[in-house]
Amino acid sequence: MTVNRRFLLVRRPHGTPLPEDFRLVEEAIPEAPEGGFVVRNCYASLDPAQRGWMDDAPSYMPPIALNDPIRASTVGVVHSSKTPDFQVGDWVLGLNGLEDYSVNHAGGFTMKIDVSAVDSPSKFLSAMGAVGLTAYFGLTDVAKPQPGETLLVSGAAGAVGSAVGQIGKIMGARVIGIAGGAAKCQRLLDDYGFDVAIDYKGKSVEQLAAEIRAAAPNGADVVFENVGGDVMDAELLNLAKKARIVLCGLISEYNSPQKVGVRNLWQVLAQQATIHGYLIMDYAPRFAEGGAVMAEWMAEGRLRIDEDVQDGLENAYPAFMRLFSGANTGKLVLKIADGL
Amino acid sequence: MTVNRRFLLVRRPHGTPLPEDFRLVEEAIPEAPEGGFVVRNCYASLDPAQRGWMDDAPSYMPPIALNDPIRASTVGVVHSSKTPDFQVGDWVLGLNGLEDYSVNHAGGFTMKIDVSAVDSPSKFLSAMGAVGLTAYFGLTDVAKPQPGETLLVSGAAGAVGSAVGQIGKIMGARVIGIAGGAAKCQRLLDDYGFDVAIDYKGKSVEQLAAEIRAAAPNGADVVFENVGGDVMDAELLNLAKKARIVLCGLISEYNSPQKVGVRNLWQVLAQQATIHGYLIMDYAPRFAEGGAVMAEWMAEGRLRIDEDVQDGLENAYPAFMRLFSGANTGKLVLKIADGL
Repeated sequence: MTVNRRFLLVRRPHGTPLPEDFRLVEEAIPEAPEGGFVVRNCYASLDPAQRGWMDDAPSYMPPIALNDPIRASTVGVVHSSKTPDFQVGDWVLGLNGLEDYSVNHAGGFTMKIDVSAVDSPSKFLSAMGAVGLTAYFGLTDVAKPQPGETLLVSGAAGAVGSAVGQIGKIMGARVIGIAGGAAKCQRLLDDYGFDVAIDYKGKSVEQLAAEIRAAAPNGADVVFENVGGDVMDAELLNLAKKARIVLCGLISEYNSPQKVGVRNLWQVLAQQATIHGYLIMDYAPRFAEGGAVMAEWMAEGRLRIDEDVQDGLENAYPAFMRLFSGANTGKLVLKIADGL
Repeated sequence: MTVNRRFLLVRRPHGTPLPEDFRLVEEAIPEAPEGGFVVRNCYASLDPAQRGWMDDAPSYMPPIALNDPIRASTVGVVHSSKTPDFQVGDWVLGLNGLEDYSVNHAGGFTMKIDVSAVDSPSKFLSAMGAVGLTAYFGLTDVAKPQPGETLLVSGAAGAVGSAVGQIGKIMGARVIGIAGGAAKCQRLLDDYGFDVAIDYKGKSVEQLAAEIRAAAPNGADVVFENVGGDVMDAELLNLAKKARIVLCGLISEYNSPQKVGVRNLWQVLAQQATIHGYLIMDYAPRFAEGGAVMAEWMAEGRLRIDEDVQDGLENAYPAFMRLFSGANTGKLVLKIADGL
């Protein structure tokens, strides 16, 4: 490569992102700044959170600036460096962009990784990256399901949800997953070991609530929420007393021009439940600790993290949209280049 | 009295309660059952929660059965007894009904009270009862505002809200209250010592959010929520990172046939906030402890709990509706009879 291809946000999406909201451009490969380095991105994480970053709305991070590349967690190799902490050839995980080359510095999410122990560096974007560890810390540090408790997971066939269900089983919970479509529900049972799978498609809040109630007559002790909207409203009608709700994502409303929220908030009060707004960012200092446990569970065959690897920066738009069509099976990753 | 007047629920309200949803009947004074007693109710608490109990919907208590009296906390005097634990003439606080005489037993919310230290037994329904202690434990045990933190209270001129604001000040917080109308806002400043009062009336979510932002540029560390709906949506746009939200009431939707909930739930996630569904019931064993602190603060002139005492069981309906018209100033209490 002699150029840096960059996938830019050129217009803020109104609702569902359109191809015209983005532009792939070619620029010169950047120089490493004093104290920093340039990384050759090899794999980029595609996540629902990126849709939120495209909006000019108050959130936990500033919005992506217009004409900047789409912000993304990537793994890659140091291409040039003006800091002794990162040497050319080092593998790094960091918050970069959908582009061939990114300028980065030490600190924040940026960390060196040892790819020798994994079959693909992309594992640092799935099982041992923010996505797998979102599931890990959300259960082990926030919700803390106890053996015999009922764990209800929405978006259960997704990257976070499938890991949540499996970790919940490891922790001794009874696990009920909600997903869209018969094929995904079958995967919850066959591939991920959920106890019950519920298909939300084509059902009213009342119908979905009744199906959850049949599967969990005493209510859910823990809800791991990735979806929001009607799915969450049905869950809220099935809370056990003092239920803990990990509010991890609201994918059903990310492409909605209006915020949707929930209607059955009253149930949170009535059941003395707690909603924990949850972001993985603050756990970055504990990634190595959590990643080691995840790696051990995978090595023991107790945890399966699938990846849906799409190829090529030029396919960034259709690849990203797989998140919202429900097409992706496993953690969605965009391959930008082979390792060195 | 030779009869027992009882204010019954005869039809479940659809939206705003109508006079025809209730009926005042006369029955014989009940006999004390074995192991129980009959209390002559003197004061009854009128609370927004009673509106929820009228609906046939899942909640923290069963709905009031049709043709039963409206469930209410009361203070009264033991009229007859078949238990050595409660003697005729004892003053008791308990969960009874809007009626002259109620059958009760030991346990649950039922407790003997010492009315010699208060100017009116009704204080056990306000400052030293569930309402005052809702404010007390919601702050001291759930939200725990720290000195210098910003506390945002909705329904701030109400019985719970005005106590929350004052206790927040005692705990060292900066206190912002939201109330309906200029007169109530003035009372927040003059009578209850709030730092800022914001009138929500006639304002859009965006306008109200902007006013809160002007008063709390760094966001609210603690939100004490009594209202829900648009008011809560405006508050959610002004959360400090890791804000704690005490979800105590949603009075704005109690008369709505449809649940309303919130739209800006995303902000809870983005700010890593926590929503605590909060009921005072579980704190019943600690009422004496909290009531002693409240009594001390009142004696020191640091805490003012106003009561709005309406007179007569025959006025139960118009008295109750004062809660929803915003007419009540202070804790709404219905006087049923003088003490013995």
